[in-house]
Parts: sequence; structure tokens; C-alpha cells
Amino acid sequence: MRIGFIGIGLMGLPLCRRLLAAGHPLAVWNRSPEKCRPLAELGAAVATSPAALAAGVDLLLLCVSDTAAVEAVVFGTDGIAAGAHAGLLVIDHSSIAPAATRTLAARLAATGVRWLDAPVSGGVIGAENGTLVIMAGGSVADVEQARPVLMSYAQRLTRMGEVGAGQVTKVCNQLIVAANSLLIAETVALAEHAGVDARLLAPALAGGFADSLPFQILAPRMAERRFEPVQWKVQTLLKDLGNALTLASETGSSVPLASQAEALMRRHADSGQAAADLSSIIALHSQGAPD
Amino acid sequence: MRIGFIGIGLMGLPLCRRLLAAGHPLAVWNRSPEKCRPLAELGAAVATSPAALAAGVDLLLLCVSDTAAVEAVVFGTDGIAAGAHAGLLVIDHSSIAPAATRTLAARLAATGVRWLDAPVSGGVIGAENGTLVIMAGGSVADVEQARPVLMSYAQRLTRMGEVGAGQVTKVCNQLIVAANSLLIAETVALAEHAGVDARLLAPALAGGFADSLPFQILAPRMAERRFEPVQWKVQTLLKDLGNALTLASETGSSVPLASQAEALMRRHADSGQAAADLSSIIALHSQGAPD
Repeated sequence: MRIGFIGIGLMGLPLCRRLLAAGHPLAVWNRSPEKCRPLAELGAAVATSPAALAAGVDLLLLCVSDTAAVEAVVFGTDGIAAGAHAGLLVIDHSSIAPAATRTLAARLAATGVRWLDAPVSGGVIGAENGTLVIMAGGSVADVEQARPVLMSYAQRLTRMGEVGAGQVTKVCNQLIVAANSLLIAETVALAEHAGVDARLLAPALAGGFADSLPFQILAPRMAERRFEPVQWKVQTLLKDLGNALTLASETGSSVPLASQAEALMRRHADSGQAAADLSSIIALHSQGAPD
Repeated sequence: MRIGFIGIGLMGLPLCRRLLAAGHPLAVWNRSPEKCRPLAELGAAVATSPAALAAGVDLLLLCVSDTAAVEAVVFGTDGIAAGAHAGLLVIDHSSIAPAATRTLAARLAATGVRWLDAPVSGGVIGAENGTLVIMAGGSVADVEQARPVLMSYAQRLTRMGEVGAGQVTKVCNQLIVAANSLLIAETVALAEHAGVDARLLAPALAGGFADSLPFQILAPRMAERRFEPVQWKVQTLLKDLGNALTLASETGSSVPLASQAEALMRRHADSGQAAADLSSIIALHSQGAPD
């Protein structure tokens, strides 16, 4: 099976490395071609356009930044649609809007091209270690065709439903991550105001009912006001909460806490912290801080 | 060291069993004396009052339901204060208000009795398995005197600061648990409205950034509308959120998400669900459910 990959960024690069290490023949394309060089040195072919890449592979993986970038690479000049052949399976690892995913998939389906939305969770570390969690939307047959390839870098691949269901699940995941990070900030500030050394919270409560990966990562950084290096950008989580509100609005779902979380996150981003690390949201509660 | 225990309930019973199994000599008291019988059969002495118990031990453990119950057992008729001797160390495993804790401790300190607030997290299972997490407030010396005894049923005992700091930490823990449970409900409902089988969420996202023990416990029960048996009562979590708001108000801390979470939890409790399992809060979002 010939495999193509579009989007050699922070995530794409380690994913491609793992595909090559697993012995998959690989061709790649990236908007800035120099990003393909380390993969070419490892034996990957470098395509001249998404259209040329789509013409020569059976399975085409995407990992780009947002909905607009996916649309450009699929339907732009020399895009995937221009070179696609009936039978091609496109697998999108990007995190984009579920509604846009369904529209893209429907347009491609008219030409016999199949679509699997397969957003990932686990970050660059998970990509490097092959421990990503993948939530997929598409037919059972398409998920099973993709599985041996995707398991090169995932610990788990779950089919959540038809096309779009993977992106819905990613939106759900990010709703909890983003809103919980604001809860963690409230908690760290409350502990400080009540005279407890908040640096002790994460080790003291590890493994308990309040614990989570964000709690272990963010609570110590918040307590120490240690906002460098940037791991998660405020604007990324703000975008995620926006996607959750849009999905809720489209489906008639009530998300009162996520709505308030979005307003709080937006207030923080608008105060000049959009590109700062998520841990900086502790500043929302620092007005009345002791000392 | 002679050890006493007051409050032989769901938590107290397994804690006493573990103390006896570890070879500690133990005397117990409970408001309903028949609850002491299984421990008497294992060799525990049964005291006739909290005062009598306090008179005969070096270290007195409490595990009762709320602030009023602690006050009654300490300062009520034949209470601990009536029998206490200088040098007694009282260790309170109950989850009560930090301010009340400091007041109780100060009153007892006048007679040479020391106080350690030591609320626990981990539930009945954690008590039975000896895997509780304990967050303590008191002097370093008192924490270290208690440590060998408390580690009979804990995996971790962390000193969070002076008297009251353990209860502050428990309030922080519960703020996250209660508000996160409402986020989980929003997420389960959003997934359902968007056409995803929400029963798949917990296994699909296990180990990721959105994951937590409440997510694994509550999301499947919410998705299946399976509210029996009752594990966590709505009114307990509502009380916890109330304690968080009180502490925030006392300390001038802003907790906007916890405030909204309290209002949502109260609305659900007031709809006749106060004694129901926490998973029933999915009903807040079920008006538009596709079913």
C-alpha cells in the first residue's frame, strides 16, 4: 500500500519518522518544501504538489493546522481533488470543525474518494513515542484499512461513528481540557488565598479524584508563575472552546460551563496573553492575591 | 500508643479494621453502639462516651459526617473536651469547614489538646485497600507523630500547612471533582446531540488529557442513564461546592466557574434529585436529547 503524508510540522515529522521506521513506503508534501528534507534523507519521496501526491498513493494522510488549511490542500490549486483517483482514502489527523469535515467528505465522495477524520490526542511526545490516541469518523471498512498504518504511532484507534464523529470527539476532549484548566486555576488561587502552599497540591492529590494530566502539568506551573516554555497556547484552547460552542449551537446542546470558560479564556487572551502558555490563566485570579 | 476512634460508619469501619490488622491497640465509640460490634469481635475495646474514650488514649481519630457532628462529639455532653488530657492529639478525618476547624482547634489548644485536620480522598474502596490520600493541617511534629498510624490505611500523607490547611485542600479537591463532573455531563450530552455514541467516550479517551477517575466512572453511567447504585450523592457534591464558595468569599478569591457549577448543581438537587447519584446531572442537558 502506497502512503502519502501532507503537513510535515511538529506532529507530522515524528509521525512520518515512525511510518518509515515501520517499513511503510512513504511520499510526502509540505507547503514549505525544506521541511521534507530530513524525511527525504530517510528515504521518503518528495512530491511536487498535493495533486501529484494524491495521484500516486492509496492512502493519503493529512496533518495541518486548521479548517482553512485542510480546505486549501484539498480543493486549492494543484490540491488533492485535482489528482485524486477513485479508491483513494484520505485520512485527516488535523483538528477541524465537524461540519466542515462532513462537507469536504461529501464533495470528495462524488469522485469516489473516501474520507476518514482521525484527530489525535497526546501531543508531540505521544507522536514521538507512538502513544497517540486516535478518535476516528468513517466507515468500519475504512477504519480497518487504516488501522495497521495508524497503529505505527498510536496506542489506540477508536471508531466513534460516521464521518465527522472523530472531530466531534476531539471537540469534546478539548472542551474538558480547556474548561478544566480554568477550574485548576480557580483552585490554585483559592488554595493560595486560604494560606496553603499551592505547589503542594499536585503531588498531594496525585492519583485522586481531582487528578488529571492537566492538573499535574498546570497546577505546579501556575503555583510557581512559571509560564515558560510555552507548551499549550491560550489561543489554541480558546479556539477549541469556540469549536465546542459552535457545535453546541449547531446541535441545540446546552454547555453553560463551557460558555463561561470561553468568556474567561477570551478575556485572558484579549489582555495580551493569546500566545502565552495556558498556565498564565492564573492571572485571572491574581488581583486579590496575598503578597 | 493507645488509639481511639470515633465514628464507625462506611469509612470508619474499614479504617478500624486496618488499624487492628496492623496491630494497634484500639478503643472505639459510635453514636449507635451496635456499629461497634464487628470491631469488638476483632478485639477493640468499646468506650461508653467520647469523654471516656478521650481520657484513655494518646491519639484520638474522628471520622464523622459534617461540621455539626464534629462539634457535637468534641464539645457536646460527655464530649471529647470533657475527658481530654493535656498531650492528647485529636486527628479529624471528617471533611468540614476550614474556619470551623481552626475555631475547634483553638478552643482545645487552651487545655493542651492538639488538633490535626486530616481529611481523606479515595472513598470506601481506598479505605479498604489502604490507598487513601490524606491531606493534613497541623504542626510538623503532630503530623509525624500521626504518620505511622495513618499509613495503616493511606498511600500518602501530605502536610499542607498549619491547622485548617488540610480542610482547605479537601475543599480544593472537591471543587475540581464537582465542577468537572458537570463538565463531563455537558460533554456527554454534546457528543450525543452531535450523533456520537457517548458510551464510547471513556474507553476512547482513557489516558488522555481529558481523562480523570470521575470521567471513567461518570461518563459511561451518564451515557447509559444508569443512576443506580448511588455512589456519590448530588447533595454531597452540592455541599462541597458550597464550602468552596464560602471559603472563596472568606478569602476574597474569585471562583466564577465553581459559582456557576454550584448554581447548576443546586438546580438539579432542587428538582428532586438531591439524594440521587451524581451521574443523574446529565438530566440538566437532556431536554433536547435525540434519543
